Amino acid sequence: MQDWFTSTAPAAAKAAPKDPWALPDVSHLVVGVLGGTGDQGRGLAYRLARAGQRLILGSRAADRAREAAAELGHDVEGTDNAECARRSDIVIVAVPWDGHAEILQSLRADLAGKLVVDCVNPLGCDKQGAYALTVPEGSAAQQAAALLPQSRVTAAFHHLSAALLQKPEIEKIDTDVMVLGDSRADTDTVQALVGRVPGIRGVYAGRLRNAHQVESLVANLISANRRYKAHAGLLVTDV
Amino acid sequence: MQDWFTSTAPAAAKAAPKDPWALPDVSHLVVGVLGGTGDQGRGLAYRLARAGQRLILGSRAADRAREAAAELGHDVEGTDNAECARRSDIVIVAVPWDGHAEILQSLRADLAGKLVVDCVNPLGCDKQGAYALTVPEGSAAQQAAALLPQSRVTAAFHHLSAALLQKPEIEKIDTDVMVLGDSRADTDTVQALVGRVPGIRGVYAGRLRNAHQVESLVANLISANRRYKAHAGLLVTDV
Repeated sequence: MQDWFTSTAPAAAKAAPKDPWALPDVSHLVVGVLGGTGDQGRGLAYRLARAGQRLILGSRAADRAREAAAELGHDVEGTDNAECARRSDIVIVAVPWDGHAEILQSLRADLAGKLVVDCVNPLGCDKQGAYALTVPEGSAAQQAAALLPQSRVTAAFHHLSAALLQKPEIEKIDTDVMVLGDSRADTDTVQALVGRVPGIRGVYAGRLRNAHQVESLVANLISANRRYKAHAGLLVTDV
Repeated sequence: MQDWFTSTAPAAAKAAPKDPWALPDVSHLVVGVLGGTGDQGRGLAYRLARAGQRLILGSRAADRAREAAAELGHDVEGTDNAECARRSDIVIVAVPWDGHAEILQSLRADLAGKLVVDCVNPLGCDKQGAYALTVPEGSAAQQAAALLPQSRVTAAFHHLSAALLQKPEIEKIDTDVMVLGDSRADTDTVQALVGRVPGIRGVYAGRLRNAHQVESLVANLISANRRYKAHAGLLVTDV
């Protein structure tokens, strides 16, 4: 039952709502990807760079980041995570869940003032497949927000197939990306960034306190992938 | 990153996988709806009955169920929850989260042997909107499974807009319903039931242990509804 809030509140004394699709121009912003040598990081960097965004891959080892960047082409640069963070306007966190807290803690100063986009899915895996892990802070994104008090933390890019992102022959990925965050300006910016990739749309999907289920839903997509031999994605209808 | 399981396991010594879209005929099954006088229950009953399924609404008060059933037409019957459970093959649980445990506990014997479809979303609500509640059993569906050891418990129908379900002028709702459960036969049956409604498709989305995020995702759809003045739904792509 999801209709609680569709009834319109009394309009009196309220300003006209801002057009939710009036998003800022982000084409000049430098985007860094921490964990940029992993499958998801490489995939996201490739799609964004191919769309014309300036990209920097970060990794614990700068030389591995440089190698991965060279393979991606599109003028992607590679360096260590700290320099990647410092030189970027928007920093996508695509590190493994295992190292999430430790890496972010070590980059706290480098990430100060940055718009951080967490796309980490805290999942476990056993014989029965994938399942959501319990995160003390609530979600990976809320953990990032707790560890990075001087950064603006959002969450996005959870449900994209890393395999599809990395295939050069795929021109367009028709899917929606749920964008979460507590500041309208920040989620608008992230939605605009998402929308740079052909076919992909960034849809606002709530505050950070509602990030856990978006992160965890990847376990369900993995179940669908197994059953249907697919790379399942999501579309939000009527939006 | 959702591609862990798309790589094919060694095929040797494995039977050919069953076609995931070969679903059973469920047109002869009687479907009960506990909490059938609420918005979601009424909406689901209306859509299924209109598609030709035999429907029984259940409510704490039999006369309220009979009234609601008469309003829905399509030969929908109304009675108290216990009789509804006993007379149905498939029982949809659409009660408020507040009464979920108590109602199911009281119906344990009536629901023995039945295929139960939980569609309850444990959500809280404050000034900042909706948010997921923590459920000791993990999810509403897992709570149902714990309380109903003699029933076969599945979960589905979480993301449908009760408002859209109830509008007679809407012929078709193009959306997917995620179906969860631990038994293939049971999720196949529920998928088949879901598929009776024009436009709606039942997609397998994992075991009950992954129900929490599917239930909670309604909080995100509510956030999207507020932002976009919409009745947001979901489609699973590439499936």
